[in-house]
Amino acid sequence: MNSKLSILYKETLLNNIIPFWEQHSLDQKNGGYFTCLDAQGGIFDTDKFIWLQGRQAWTFSMLYNKVDKKERWLSAAKSGIEFLKTHGTDSQGNFYFATTAEGKPLVHAYNIFSDCFAAMAFSQYAKATGEAEYKELAQKTYYNILNRISNPKGLYEKNTNTRQLTGFSLPMILSNLTLELEDILAPEEVQKTIDYSVHQVMDIFLDKKTGLIFENVLPDGSHHNSFNGRLINPGHGIEAMWFMIDIGVRKNDTSLIEKATQTILTILEYSWDPKYGGIFYFMDSEGHPPQQLEWDQKLWWVHLETLVALAKAYEHTHNKDILNWYYKVHAYTWTHFSDSENGEWYGYLNRQGEILLHLKGGKWKGCFHVPRAMFQCWKSFENIEKFTQINLPKD
Amino acid sequence: MNSKLSILYKETLLNNIIPFWEQHSLDQKNGGYFTCLDAQGGIFDTDKFIWLQGRQAWTFSMLYNKVDKKERWLSAAKSGIEFLKTHGTDSQGNFYFATTAEGKPLVHAYNIFSDCFAAMAFSQYAKATGEAEYKELAQKTYYNILNRISNPKGLYEKNTNTRQLTGFSLPMILSNLTLELEDILAPEEVQKTIDYSVHQVMDIFLDKKTGLIFENVLPDGSHHNSFNGRLINPGHGIEAMWFMIDIGVRKNDTSLIEKATQTILTILEYSWDPKYGGIFYFMDSEGHPPQQLEWDQKLWWVHLETLVALAKAYEHTHNKDILNWYYKVHAYTWTHFSDSENGEWYGYLNRQGEILLHLKGGKWKGCFHVPRAMFQCWKSFENIEKFTQINLPKD
Repeated sequence: MNSKLSILYKETLLNNIIPFWEQHSLDQKNGGYFTCLDAQGGIFDTDKFIWLQGRQAWTFSMLYNKVDKKERWLSAAKSGIEFLKTHGTDSQGNFYFATTAEGKPLVHAYNIFSDCFAAMAFSQYAKATGEAEYKELAQKTYYNILNRISNPKGLYEKNTNTRQLTGFSLPMILSNLTLELEDILAPEEVQKTIDYSVHQVMDIFLDKKTGLIFENVLPDGSHHNSFNGRLINPGHGIEAMWFMIDIGVRKNDTSLIEKATQTILTILEYSWDPKYGGIFYFMDSEGHPPQQLEWDQKLWWVHLETLVALAKAYEHTHNKDILNWYYKVHAYTWTHFSDSENGEWYGYLNRQGEILLHLKGGKWKGCFHVPRAMFQCWKSFENIEKFTQINLPKD
Repeated sequence: MNSKLSILYKETLLNNIIPFWEQHSLDQKNGGYFTCLDAQGGIFDTDKFIWLQGRQAWTFSMLYNKVDKKERWLSAAKSGIEFLKTHGTDSQGNFYFATTAEGKPLVHAYNIFSDCFAAMAFSQYAKATGEAEYKELAQKTYYNILNRISNPKGLYEKNTNTRQLTGFSLPMILSNLTLELEDILAPEEVQKTIDYSVHQVMDIFLDKKTGLIFENVLPDGSHHNSFNGRLINPGHGIEAMWFMIDIGVRKNDTSLIEKATQTILTILEYSWDPKYGGIFYFMDSEGHPPQQLEWDQKLWWVHLETLVALAKAYEHTHNKDILNWYYKVHAYTWTHFSDSENGEWYGYLNRQGEILLHLKGGKWKGCFHVPRAMFQCWKSFENIEKFTQINLPKD
């Protein structure tokens, strides 16, 4: 292995991950991307999941903007952007959850996550091309998200108002989305939304007593003793902490960075599987059986977002406990998820660390967490390597 | 172990399963049942899941009607019946998915399964008490189900009309519900609905080529190459086959019984885990990765319904292949799910057969599949033992 981690992440991104998606996922006929890819890259399902279309269009635009002005990347991004523009929305401008390969609507717009990733994609693509049309699409999508935020599921909300639990996903995504859209929003809008989401994440969803992020809380941040109220999603919490570190860096707020770093450590201590290694997918804060049958599985995005969070935390704090956790999570993640034979990473392992689904992409895994984490870790380790030499323990 | 299987099932039902629910699940304050019970029977969540309320009220009414006129069973049934009557429905008469312990609505009526089990409960309870009110409630609920059957999710349906897949659950449940409600419906209504559901199950959902039951098909029974269109739920298919055998016995239709028996064998050959034993929860008919992350888990109801199906098939056909499968599934099921220490059965095992969730009841597991299977197997083996002596292989 190359001794520099920055090089490992860069080369894996550029020579393994991105070529896999360029080779296997582009729908040359209809535009957009096939995301259901088996271990070798074969397409096993052709439906288009809109948030994965947005995520992949974002990834290729981001690479064009931040890594290299390759025309082929811009063209891959354009394919998804045009698909989103033409087939992505219903008559109210809300993004569908899924369409057929040709773009016929399959599953209605039952939440606003598709919209969040479409907005990110339009914004990065606007930056790449300088075309006003995509900037306007990004703005329009962003304000539509804000309009729907008090009732993101709209008509499809099955819960009554009896129990006023609110979910962590939205403030978490907003905290990242706002930085992503910084160039196309008014500065006061950016500031307002960042302040709102930092407050939500760090004061409302972060529990003062345990130091854990709860997935659903009452409006004042207090807890409700029910399945949803006890739910911990460690990967979500850790991912949000690197969004907080990004915001802390932007605001030069070292106490926010420090608090996010401590929270990463707390969540990892809590959610690391003592028996088989890896981070659990879901937990119950009281130790009761979670309702999610997949609770003990080990998911690619949880581990990759943790590597990003640890790299960023170490980059900005030089905290030794963070470095030790980085070693541990790195060893597990690179050994278990990466497929050196066929390229890209597996997404789903069972508790024991064996491959549960032999796929590189599906309904929920696309071209997003792996390349984004590779890029983020590459850049963080470039900075880390300016002040120290990281040597992975051999074992 | 007692050498007679009929005695094993009877004694487990009466001395282990039912006492567990009587002791731990009755909500003395609000009526209805707590179903979230840990391994020892401790209540870890108090929300009321309406279909589990209906299922438990049905179980206690059925025991009163078919096993013994114990006042305590009737009283336990009444508690759930009154809860359903008072708190179960919204203003349109549709049954909620969940309420609080006190009966405040938590999750709207987003499908008609709660209604199916409420109808079964009212009908059994009407038979137990002879009270016209419950007979009328059962009839009203049944006709409301039929009214909603073309769009069972109502406003909560997220799928567009692009792909006309229809699901197996409804015809499957109807085939059992109609026999359950036989006493309170007009004979021509019973006949019509039985004919409809047998046709749906055996001609539309049962695939002529593979002999498997598909979970979602196009209206003419042809298949669609998509996640939902490729989905196989072996436990569902096998459970439906014992409903078909019941109908075959009622109609004296030996060819239906024979076809159901062959289908049980085909599904078992297809879905038995060759590595660890047990029946998979979900499979993809083309061998692609299923979208359900829990696909390889071993669930209590799948295995118990299989024991019932095998017992009934053997009772009516004396087929030796069925008997051999019975031995195999019996050995796996009684060894892995039954908890000899604390009573009742675990619900969820991982692929390896280890306990995944240390619970006896939850959001989806209540007082239903275990006692119903114990009762059905007890009665089938009483008949089987009239013509042969079953000796379980020792190993």
